[in-house]
Amino acid sequence: MKPRLFTPGPTPVPEETLLELAKPVTYHRSSEAKAILGEVTEDLKYVFQTAQPVFTLTCSGTGGMEAAVSNTLAAGEKAILCTAGRWGERWRGVLKAFAANIVAVEVPYGQAVTPEMLENALKANPDAKVVFSTLSETSTGVGHDLEGYGKVVAKTDALLAVDGISGVGAMECRMDAWGLDIVVTGSQKALMMPPGLAFISLSEKAWKKVDATPVRSFYLDVRRYKKSLAESDTPFTPGNTLIKAQRASLKRIRAEGIENLWARHNRIAAACRAGVQAMGLKLFAERPNSALTVIKVPEGVDGSGTLKTLEKKYGYKWADGQDAMKGQIWRLSHMGYTDAFDVLGALSALELVLSEAGFKLEVGAGVAAFQKAYAAGK
Amino acid sequence: MKPRLFTPGPTPVPEETLLELAKPVTYHRSSEAKAILGEVTEDLKYVFQTAQPVFTLTCSGTGGMEAAVSNTLAAGEKAILCTAGRWGERWRGVLKAFAANIVAVEVPYGQAVTPEMLENALKANPDAKVVFSTLSETSTGVGHDLEGYGKVVAKTDALLAVDGISGVGAMECRMDAWGLDIVVTGSQKALMMPPGLAFISLSEKAWKKVDATPVRSFYLDVRRYKKSLAESDTPFTPGNTLIKAQRASLKRIRAEGIENLWARHNRIAAACRAGVQAMGLKLFAERPNSALTVIKVPEGVDGSGTLKTLEKKYGYKWADGQDAMKGQIWRLSHMGYTDAFDVLGALSALELVLSEAGFKLEVGAGVAAFQKAYAAGK
Repeated sequence: MKPRLFTPGPTPVPEETLLELAKPVTYHRSSEAKAILGEVTEDLKYVFQTAQPVFTLTCSGTGGMEAAVSNTLAAGEKAILCTAGRWGERWRGVLKAFAANIVAVEVPYGQAVTPEMLENALKANPDAKVVFSTLSETSTGVGHDLEGYGKVVAKTDALLAVDGISGVGAMECRMDAWGLDIVVTGSQKALMMPPGLAFISLSEKAWKKVDATPVRSFYLDVRRYKKSLAESDTPFTPGNTLIKAQRASLKRIRAEGIENLWARHNRIAAACRAGVQAMGLKLFAERPNSALTVIKVPEGVDGSGTLKTLEKKYGYKWADGQDAMKGQIWRLSHMGYTDAFDVLGALSALELVLSEAGFKLEVGAGVAAFQKAYAAGK
Repeated sequence: MKPRLFTPGPTPVPEETLLELAKPVTYHRSSEAKAILGEVTEDLKYVFQTAQPVFTLTCSGTGGMEAAVSNTLAAGEKAILCTAGRWGERWRGVLKAFAANIVAVEVPYGQAVTPEMLENALKANPDAKVVFSTLSETSTGVGHDLEGYGKVVAKTDALLAVDGISGVGAMECRMDAWGLDIVVTGSQKALMMPPGLAFISLSEKAWKKVDATPVRSFYLDVRRYKKSLAESDTPFTPGNTLIKAQRASLKRIRAEGIENLWARHNRIAAACRAGVQAMGLKLFAERPNSALTVIKVPEGVDGSGTLKTLEKKYGYKWADGQDAMKGQIWRLSHMGYTDAFDVLGALSALELVLSEAGFKLEVGAGVAAFQKAYAAGK
């Protein structure tokens, strides 16, 4: 049986990237290492759609989120938290650890926080320093209107911080044009890499707040990364083999073109939704994003058991719901190094498992609908 | 030309470990992933010589040091900093970021902080909460008497935190038997891995202080790692491909046996010192450790230029001094996946370069002395 990874992080990694990781380790302070970091930084600026430097942190995405919080908020300062799921709650966890005064704009799982809700919160809290938001709420499949957020936040003195961990590279996200002040992402999602690196970029407006905020971390102090990156270097021993491998995946992204990449994800996501619905299944997210498709487990079906069978019998590794959502939803990633044929196979496997379990569906309807929608897309 | 890495981190990585990194990425919340983390944790306990759990953090060694500081010190609490070089100064940087009240026990580069000095500082500062120390001061080649530190700190209420980043696995270090309360290390030194992971373990005495200390980080909060590790899991997406690779290197360490590993490093280090001195060169560290050999650049020799020639002409990558020490010393690592024959080659290359540059030495004396000392060792 052939194992296939469809979890919304980690995602499949191209062979040329994996092979980079198998090469002998080299010194991280050489001119060659600096040149590699320079290339990676330029390619990340392209992916982020920003003219600002993008810093490479050796940590998980959550470490990147902590950098966003610890560098911009003094203890007790007010933060607006837009939360629509588990990853909004991750922001809350970090904010609590840093003693922020949290004003939450909260919606139930499956729904999206709208720019109007955020605008109202900003009006009610003119002393809010930073808004924390989630581009792709991977726990529910919701995508947020960051362009809309950017417009309402730009009218205020607050900063807009974005967890783009499973969104950047999978869905349209234009840091500079949309007025996003802080964008964080991780290597193991749409950037086609194993986990271990996080990336963060800050607007000029954000730097002003950083410079006025007391130091609250050493390892995640963005001032240190800024100073080092000016010499194409890192302040601490970086995960340099990961950086070399990231370069390979970024070259692939650059060759495809960021707008083509977004279009590919949109086209696959739309086809996937059509396929899912043709199988008689319902989507979970009211505003689905293109990084993943999240399906409601139908009444009477064992959600977690179905995923176990999918993996055991056909090798397809989907993701279950997290925490209270376990068994309630199925999550299928189509991020990064995943194409239409991969996703078609994943739907085929789900059709087979559901049909074998006695769930009523027309075998073939799902894959045909996927194919039809994909062919009609562009 | 054949490139050979002798920097004191990163160090060479065994082929079987590198090949793990080239395997397809898998999901980090599977039972297989948990079993791997369980194995790695057990092997790390063996390497640390502790019965306490060892936590795997996805970050550089400095991130591990920050975990030691942020989890044990409230702002303004007193810390005794033992500093004998750049890595002692790294502790100082982290301590400053966390607003510690720092009492420094400082010696010039090349010298060691003795247990007596520490004892005096503890007597003068009975309110000190934590002592921060360095097992292998890689910037100078000094090794510290952690067994001696352990004895004096055990008599007090203070904790003993050890930066073991380039020491653990290269020189004797017994966390439990020596009374070390916090030990931190990184993957890219004697543990034969690329950079990207840090490891930390805490004694019961340390946990009591942690539980009484306000939360100052989310990503590096050791309570979260403790809770997750009880289920053989990690709180945040870990560098799971690195963890799999670390398992391979730990198996190698386990097969060799930790005491054999220490003995191997000691034997190579002693032979290396003999070789260096037979070349008419002087050692820099007054209390040299077995992780690396640090040599004073002789009068009239271009220190940095010699290293450039070594690399360009013979492929040997040694490390220069850092910051103010640049050009003053040469640093040769013999940590991890490096054996006597590797180090013999490195000395041979240095002899050739020095001789070619007109430095007066008897060609062959260095390698012969190395060989003789190595043969006499055990």
